Amino acid sequence: MRRWNGWGDDSTTKEVSEHGGALIRSFIGEPKALADVSLESVMAKVPASRLPKHPLISTDAEERVRHARGQSFPDWLAMRSGDFDVFPDGIAYPETSTQVREILDLAVEHDFIVIPYGGGTSVAGHITPQENAKAILTIDMGRMNQLMELNEESQIATFGAGTPGPQVESQLQARGYTLGHYPQSWELSTIGGWVATRSSGQQSLRYGRIEQMFAGGKLETMLGTMDIPTIPASSAGPDMREVTMGMEGRMGIYTEVKVRVVRVAQEEKFMVCFMPSWEAGKAVAREVAQQKIPMSMMRVSNAAETRAHANLGTTLKQFKLLDGYLRFRGLDDNRCMLTFGVTGSKLQNKSSMKQVKKILRQYKGIGGPLANIMGSIWAHGRFKFPYLRETTWAQGIAVDTLETSTDWDNVDNMMNGMEESLRTALKDEGEEVMVFTHLSHVYGQGSSIYTTYFFRCADTYENTLARWKKLKGNTCDVIAQGRATISHQHGVGRDHAPYMPAEKGELGMRVIETLIKDFDPEKRLNPGVLIEDDK
Amino acid sequence: MRRWNGWGDDSTTKEVSEHGGALIRSFIGEPKALADVSLESVMAKVPASRLPKHPLISTDAEERVRHARGQSFPDWLAMRSGDFDVFPDGIAYPETSTQVREILDLAVEHDFIVIPYGGGTSVAGHITPQENAKAILTIDMGRMNQLMELNEESQIATFGAGTPGPQVESQLQARGYTLGHYPQSWELSTIGGWVATRSSGQQSLRYGRIEQMFAGGKLETMLGTMDIPTIPASSAGPDMREVTMGMEGRMGIYTEVKVRVVRVAQEEKFMVCFMPSWEAGKAVAREVAQQKIPMSMMRVSNAAETRAHANLGTTLKQFKLLDGYLRFRGLDDNRCMLTFGVTGSKLQNKSSMKQVKKILRQYKGIGGPLANIMGSIWAHGRFKFPYLRETTWAQGIAVDTLETSTDWDNVDNMMNGMEESLRTALKDEGEEVMVFTHLSHVYGQGSSIYTTYFFRCADTYENTLARWKKLKGNTCDVIAQGRATISHQHGVGRDHAPYMPAEKGELGMRVIETLIKDFDPEKRLNPGVLIEDDK
Repeated sequence: MRRWNGWGDDSTTKEVSEHGGALIRSFIGEPKALADVSLESVMAKVPASRLPKHPLISTDAEERVRHARGQSFPDWLAMRSGDFDVFPDGIAYPETSTQVREILDLAVEHDFIVIPYGGGTSVAGHITPQENAKAILTIDMGRMNQLMELNEESQIATFGAGTPGPQVESQLQARGYTLGHYPQSWELSTIGGWVATRSSGQQSLRYGRIEQMFAGGKLETMLGTMDIPTIPASSAGPDMREVTMGMEGRMGIYTEVKVRVVRVAQEEKFMVCFMPSWEAGKAVAREVAQQKIPMSMMRVSNAAETRAHANLGTTLKQFKLLDGYLRFRGLDDNRCMLTFGVTGSKLQNKSSMKQVKKILRQYKGIGGPLANIMGSIWAHGRFKFPYLRETTWAQGIAVDTLETSTDWDNVDNMMNGMEESLRTALKDEGEEVMVFTHLSHVYGQGSSIYTTYFFRCADTYENTLARWKKLKGNTCDVIAQGRATISHQHGVGRDHAPYMPAEKGELGMRVIETLIKDFDPEKRLNPGVLIEDDK
Repeated sequence: MRRWNGWGDDSTTKEVSEHGGALIRSFIGEPKALADVSLESVMAKVPASRLPKHPLISTDAEERVRHARGQSFPDWLAMRSGDFDVFPDGIAYPETSTQVREILDLAVEHDFIVIPYGGGTSVAGHITPQENAKAILTIDMGRMNQLMELNEESQIATFGAGTPGPQVESQLQARGYTLGHYPQSWELSTIGGWVATRSSGQQSLRYGRIEQMFAGGKLETMLGTMDIPTIPASSAGPDMREVTMGMEGRMGIYTEVKVRVVRVAQEEKFMVCFMPSWEAGKAVAREVAQQKIPMSMMRVSNAAETRAHANLGTTLKQFKLLDGYLRFRGLDDNRCMLTFGVTGSKLQNKSSMKQVKKILRQYKGIGGPLANIMGSIWAHGRFKFPYLRETTWAQGIAVDTLETSTDWDNVDNMMNGMEESLRTALKDEGEEVMVFTHLSHVYGQGSSIYTTYFFRCADTYENTLARWKKLKGNTCDVIAQGRATISHQHGVGRDHAPYMPAEKGELGMRVIETLIKDFDPEKRLNPGVLIEDDK
């Protein structure tokens, strides 16, 4: 069953090896766990609903708890401590676009606020209700989870916006097609959520970001239904796909999402190899992107992440074997892991591999017999990382990630700045932070930067949240001031809204504010998300 | 010297072969030419300027004539007949963003209208001044034509927005880079114009449309300067590149354009081959796009265009040789010409050719010894087609094109509908129209459709314009009602503005109107373009 207070299904766990745990502790010291509260105790705190009685609205306490938070670190602390403060007043589970319309009309009639809810996987506070004089209704799109139409000639699939990753793929693959969108949240996140927050998946190098996949669909707004037609490409003014994507529910709620799909590829392979240095690893990724070599993924872990993964993901015996082999081949602690994949026809994959191997040789990469095995291990465990938080949490170790993207000439500057900011953020408390980074989405122009950090829980929930705020705040300042985006793949929500003006500029903010003001003058749709509203 | 009343440089012409001319006449009958007026006679009609005297503003009569029209068919008739009606009141040639700002401030101070002007190549009425109580200043961006910066690590080039195609490429190629954007207007159109109208080039299959190339830059608006930062990809709300692209000057004027460039490819080849039928040709293009085979272009001419090009572009001897060879190989009058190209490393090109040849064999394509020669001929003459209008005009033959894009399952329906509409539009006058079509930009989801038509000039300019209006109007109705875009690559301007509501819908139009109202409440920036303004 899905965990009410953490990631994913409670039958799934991701263990940390003993030597992996020891590595983390060697950085941050001996941790001490905080106690979790029970679902029942939180349910007892749920106040009376302020919503009108209506067949489309449930006010069941458990449902209200289960829809009260996403997966950001503050959300996690709320779920573990029971300090929720605010719950939605009710949950709706529409089954059609018409029902979504009906709910929006109700919101006007009864003057309440709505929060669109996909898989509840936001790590930026998109779905977290805030104290408000008005009642709050969370709209769970989960019942709109069907492949409604597949146009094989034009390779366009129409889905209910609440369809989660596994159901997107199973319904498509049964007919020989795939979307190929694999964010790490794939198990739970939904196609409507991907579009609303401009999501990116692990194989974006082949399939593109959701921006490239999204072909049109239906957006229910306060002003009526916006039908976005499917047109392959157009020069007829701004593209309504692009204008509405990333509005995070503030212009309306996607109910039907049309996406560009492709036939399932003949062959897919993932491989891992090791480069002698960060510079070499980064150069390979940059060359692959700039030479437009058809790959499906390319990830470069820095030396710290390479070491962390080698420890966390192996038995001690495996680790020693790998470490010994790589040292024998001349790679020291500066080595960096490269994870990459090809997906396509055998003929094209062969050519792509030939091209990438040429670059790997040039930068003295070491693959050898391990490459394919380690690649398969990565592919097998690719959606498991979020489960790690559960495991370390039980030991008193907090883990979170931060990400951005920037141009190649700024990648080192930004990565070093983010890591340094995280490493030193808790110095005033004498706390150490373990930090590592990889590049996972590479473009001709630049790359995403994805940084993971571990720190000790404080003695109380309150102090643990204060630690996180320092880590997050300091590092977001570094990003906002550094020619980089406040989010490459997680969206804005409430947590990143304060950093939007630095990125978008005064006139960019004006565009967003003007659209919200025009489409939702009463601010009933997810207020406080994307931009900080005036009170 | 650049023609004042037609396309391009007056030292360049594109001849029509005798048998090619005969083919056109066999469709439309014997034409009769209309007389052109002289530049001097038009200059004599230029009224006194209503603009204030200012060092940045020229009111020279010849300059005002030369900036009064673009290259749409009505523009052409105006330039040939001398019936201009309206001229801009003056021309400014800013050299910096600061001067553009200064001009916009002047526009407020003196209450005049501005029209941004790139290469003057619009075929949709973007730069054609309309009768207005206010004075009209055309801002020619042509002096901002420099490569200002090239960041080789991030492969981003910054250009003055008025840089035309040849200067974009010569400045980049001198340093080993290319943009790869080759619209047919490339000789004259500018990088700022490409962005403002969402242009697409002949090799979009490799390089993408301008949307994929545009990385950021500077937009001078009535509210101040919008700086659009370069970020490889972001999930932080709507993308200001996308919001401003296609606004056709109505939100502001691009002054600096940053684009994603790539290193000049190791190898580039163009080829021509012939398919036994339209269905086969279309299938090859669709397979190439849907299998994501790395090609740089793929064009499918229908049987009528295949026949027209074979006649127009060859000597009679060449034509007979080609025709004989193809008939010998079993291809009859249903044959369709496929023009395609690969651009990249030799290794990748070899793989791409292997993949495309497999598909060609499957659909029984005929290439043989002619493929490479004919491909080179195409590449050599690729920007010459617009000169054809000059040649046929002198014989009394009018030529124009219409284009759209739509999903694959709608391509035949749309192509047939457009061709039929054009063929029958002048039936009431007993006039025949020669029509042919190709697909030139192919996507996984669908394709662009580009239709050329020839018709006889009427006895007067007025009646010739009336003929065109019937042809254009009827066919745009077919497009607007048919799940297709009113323009895949030429923008909206004034000519396509009436069809925007059908494509964008009520709420899509509202987005555009809201942004214009907020950014330019006095409607001083190119009014009447993109959307029809209320009077």
